[in-house]
Amino acid sequence: MRVGFIGLGRMGSGMAENLVRAGHELVVYNRSRAKAEALAKFGARVADSVAEACQAETVWTMLADDDAVQHIVQGENGLLASLAPGALHISSSTIGVALSQRMTEAHDARRQRFVAAPVFGRPEAAKAAALDVVVAGARDAIKSAAPLLDAIGKKTFVVAETPSTANLVKLSGNFLIAAAIESIGEAMALVSKGGVDKRQYLEILTSTLFDAPAYKTYGALIAESRFEPAGFAAPLGLKDVRLALAAAEDLRAPMPIASLLRDRFLTLLANGGEALDWSAIGSLAAWEAGVGEVGGLPHRPEAPAVRTK
Amino acid sequence: MRVGFIGLGRMGSGMAENLVRAGHELVVYNRSRAKAEALAKFGARVADSVAEACQAETVWTMLADDDAVQHIVQGENGLLASLAPGALHISSSTIGVALSQRMTEAHDARRQRFVAAPVFGRPEAAKAAALDVVVAGARDAIKSAAPLLDAIGKKTFVVAETPSTANLVKLSGNFLIAAAIESIGEAMALVSKGGVDKRQYLEILTSTLFDAPAYKTYGALIAESRFEPAGFAAPLGLKDVRLALAAAEDLRAPMPIASLLRDRFLTLLANGGEALDWSAIGSLAAWEAGVGEVGGLPHRPEAPAVRTK
Amino acid sequence: MRVGFIGLGRMGSGMAENLVRAGHELVVYNRSRAKAEALAKFGARVADSVAEACQAETVWTMLADDDAVQHIVQGENGLLASLAPGALHISSSTIGVALSQRMTEAHDARRQRFVAAPVFGRPEAAKAAALDVVVAGARDAIKSAAPLLDAIGKKTFVVAETPSTANLVKLSGNFLIAAAIESIGEAMALVSKGGVDKRQYLEILTSTLFDAPAYKTYGALIAESRFEPAGFAAPLGLKDVRLALAAAEDLRAPMPIASLLRDRFLTLLANGGEALDWSAIGSLAAWEAGVGEVGGLPHRPEAPAVRTK
Amino acid sequence: MRVGFIGLGRMGSGMAENLVRAGHELVVYNRSRAKAEALAKFGARVADSVAEACQAETVWTMLADDDAVQHIVQGENGLLASLAPGALHISSSTIGVALSQRMTEAHDARRQRFVAAPVFGRPEAAKAAALDVVVAGARDAIKSAAPLLDAIGKKTFVVAETPSTANLVKLSGNFLIAAAIESIGEAMALVSKGGVDKRQYLEILTSTLFDAPAYKTYGALIAESRFEPAGFAAPLGLKDVRLALAAAEDLRAPMPIASLLRDRFLTLLANGGEALDWSAIGSLAAWEAGVGEVGGLPHRPEAPAVRTK
Repeated sequence: MRVGFIGLGRMGSGMAENLVRAGHELVVYNRSRAKAEALAKFGARVADSVAEACQAETVWTMLADDDAVQHIVQGENGLLASLAPGALHISSSTIGVALSQRMTEAHDARRQRFVAAPVFGRPEAAKAAALDVVVAGARDAIKSAAPLLDAIGKKTFVVAETPSTANLVKLSGNFLIAAAIESIGEAMALVSKGGVDKRQYLEILTSTLFDAPAYKTYGALIAESRFEPAGFAAPLGLKDVRLALAAAEDLRAPMPIASLLRDRFLTLLANGGEALDWSAIGSLAAWEAGVGEVGGLPHRPEAPAVRTK
Repeated sequence: MRVGFIGLGRMGSGMAENLVRAGHELVVYNRSRAKAEALAKFGARVADSVAEACQAETVWTMLADDDAVQHIVQGENGLLASLAPGALHISSSTIGVALSQRMTEAHDARRQRFVAAPVFGRPEAAKAAALDVVVAGARDAIKSAAPLLDAIGKKTFVVAETPSTANLVKLSGNFLIAAAIESIGEAMALVSKGGVDKRQYLEILTSTLFDAPAYKTYGALIAESRFEPAGFAAPLGLKDVRLALAAAEDLRAPMPIASLLRDRFLTLLANGGEALDWSAIGSLAAWEAGVGEVGGLPHRPEAPAVRTK
Repeated sequence: MRVGFIGLGRMGSGMAENLVRAGHELVVYNRSRAKAEALAKFGARVADSVAEACQAETVWTMLADDDAVQHIVQGENGLLASLAPGALHISSSTIGVALSQRMTEAHDARRQRFVAAPVFGRPEAAKAAALDVVVAGARDAIKSAAPLLDAIGKKTFVVAETPSTANLVKLSGNFLIAAAIESIGEAMALVSKGGVDKRQYLEILTSTLFDAPAYKTYGALIAESRFEPAGFAAPLGLKDVRLALAAAEDLRAPMPIASLLRDRFLTLLANGGEALDWSAIGSLAAWEAGVGEVGGLPHRPEAPAVRTK
Repeated sequence: MRVGFIGLGRMGSGMAENLVRAGHELVVYNRSRAKAEALAKFGARVADSVAEACQAETVWTMLADDDAVQHIVQGENGLLASLAPGALHISSSTIGVALSQRMTEAHDARRQRFVAAPVFGRPEAAKAAALDVVVAGARDAIKSAAPLLDAIGKKTFVVAETPSTANLVKLSGNFLIAAAIESIGEAMALVSKGGVDKRQYLEILTSTLFDAPAYKTYGALIAESRFEPAGFAAPLGLKDVRLALAAAEDLRAPMPIASLLRDRFLTLLANGGEALDWSAIGSLAAWEAGVGEVGGLPHRPEAPAVRTK
């Protein structure tokens, strides 16, 4: 199938590569052209514009955030303007429920088809075609998308006919990861202040009740205060929690842990954590307990100045 | 080895059974004698008193809470009074750090040996000798306890020489489970209000990032509002969170999620949830969102009616 | 001075009336013309359009929310398009910091002058020219606005040269009121469950440490579950907390009580509280404690019945 | 009336002085005798023991905490042992509800009479006989106590016949003060990061909606980071929040702001705030926002040591 692919960051590149491998004819576009050209060696054709990438039955987007998606989709010569009626847009970006709903309506109005297909998995999983894909959209659109989704993931979960529902599931998943990070951070601050070795503690947890990727991956980063380089940067973590809270507000669903997480991200960002991995919020409980540093960074060493009584 | 075993609830019975199977000579005691006699068929001898069970090199206790332990240990003709110098007390009850510290001092004063060896695992794991054991105490005491611990568990983690440290780890583990329950509850309230099927949602989580026993077990209970009969009753959940918070207070470690969990348990208990499983706190997010019932108990069946002043 | 006044709700009407009384020549505009005409009897002239009200040295706006302000200011034939260079816009609406910043830039670009002058006080205070006014903007603009501000308020506080700072102060003030409401709600749930009469309790508080309008006014509403008719409706309370949190997020300032308040408003709105006064969040602590109703609306009249699976 | 008075700290001394002034015959006792002797110049007689102070119709206690009260009341030759049947014990200490209940039972068993009469007000108010007194107990006991209470306070509030109810009201009042401190702290962190002067901000608040002693007193301390010397030390603040939470737990009343306050006190104490005034928790929001110091103290300047990646 001829597929346009827009957005070739660490996730998108792996996905595009796997689509080529599965025999699809790819036309790739990226804002900074170098990343697109890296795909050429696998046999993809490099497009000069979004519009050019849209000369296909299906266009796939994998972009950083709501702003990037809005720009590519609604901008001049963007997807909405360029896609033919009946063509399919697969959106894998982690975006807000509200934007996904607006895109659904906009594509509908142009008789273009739209599925939301956010993914769980890190860049290595994208490269290995081992992503978990959550998809929602009209049945015929999902049917068209299925062989493509199979090419990039190890499992596809169809959750609803309303595209934005898939985005909601993705955001809730990131909320759960952040909640696990904060929980581990609190538990580790407690036991390590009580004299327990953090690495051994993690081993106990992950060889018993918490034998899960989320606990292993993030628990290790927290135990070792290893927050650089960021696999997923703190500002993106804040963005996803904000989007989850926005969706929750629209649905009138209070989420006290999500509210706490938002505050945690703000504390991290207010104290020099912009470039750290989002798991660095897991260091804040120790910081408050007086035994740690924000994100492992020595903080405010310039010592809060003079104080006269 | 001759072992006294005190406390034959669902956990203790399984543990005692496995000690007999491993070839140890068991003298068992339980407040209500019937449970002790059930062990006789496996070859254990039934003691008429705590003091009688203490005529052994090692006495193991597996009791419900701090009060029960204090009564058995410090009471008249209790462990402290009855154990010979050099004898070993293995305490597997989930108790507070402060009580464990007081027991350590009291045993020390009488030249009795003491290890704390709380366990992770449910009654089925106790029966199958598949518990995970966290142990702390003086080296020689742990060395003496090792073959016994091997008989009841699949893995033993030695965490410190101060017995109460093992209790701290156990409490932190129960905190983490409760935190996972609350997190799942919030996420499920969100996505189910957004139209996602709760069971499918759980399948997505547990086949990807949250492929862990804690998420599978408790996620299913929440998705199905199946909180009766209680595997671990809500008041015990409150007790453990309270003990974790007390230990955290002594260590000066703020734990905001633990604070939230305490409030959740109080809400549950204030609304008729005394007999429910502790995972019923996972139903409160949906309750607040107006789409659920406390612990699966029906409420607000009538539309909030008119109220005139 | 000739003044255009746009937005004649309960607050705006009182303010406009006092401007007329102070001798200013008023041209009033309101979306629903009836409210504008009610001002005619005091000597105001009714404008047919926003643009007509803008034929003045100064235009004052007092509107419901960000959307209304955006529409009136940026819409076709709105303030931006209609005001002469050098003319002054006084904005008293409770709006977000971000919108205030955008308006500042837009007016600057057209050489129009802009001050933000949000007010503290209820409709009765507006009618009595007893509002407290918080104002920010360029010095000359504030100097021009001063006699007008004096006509509607009992005191004016100049806080900064950046207009949006006044909006920030206003939002923080509403946050503090909501925080007091929640605090009173928690304390009252506690003592009333402990057998204390709520009205007497409030008397104790307000005759001692909390002898302040916020505690007297809202404490009485909570003690008496008197949330209808709404003086300030719950959705507006949520709006203001949301705007405070948005400003705090931009400033990287975590506000845990504000986060809790947001969750409280969502709980209230998810359980039938749309039409209630915002102080109804003060009933939620009692609701959670099993002794109250959401916002005074009856619920759980039947004892939580048996549930068999 | 002949009155024994035990506990002559800053509060107790003022109260005792006023009792002498009102014409009562005072026998005073204090653990460190010097403070008792300071009262002699006003005409009080100094007792050598608790028992001696108990040779009176009425004994008043004003002590630091639960431990001190337990020691004086239940200890050898303490109040319980020394008071004659029919004699009255007035307890003004800020203690827990549970201890108050135990004392009620113990006095009842000995046919001694007991009223709880905690007070609101600082040492200056005690000296000026301007305390607010909350009292609970049997009617005849309160009737006996009334002239004495009038001598130390400006107003007495009778809240219940169960003494511990007065303690509950006192604890809830301290909760409300701490909640106001935290709220002010969050609001000030927000607006000061946004460029507003903290003192001016406080003036705005306290000349309008928050014209109350609690906001004026504590707002000024926070605005000026003036936490030394402590009027009421942070560990006492933690104690009172803990007692409020314990009472709330017994009553099954979740109090999310109280939970937050407990975490705030722990953070303060974990970061060098032991000697600061309890209002120093109002500095933590600014600390998290990256613009303040814990309690105004330069913190951890020794810079969190080595970190290798």
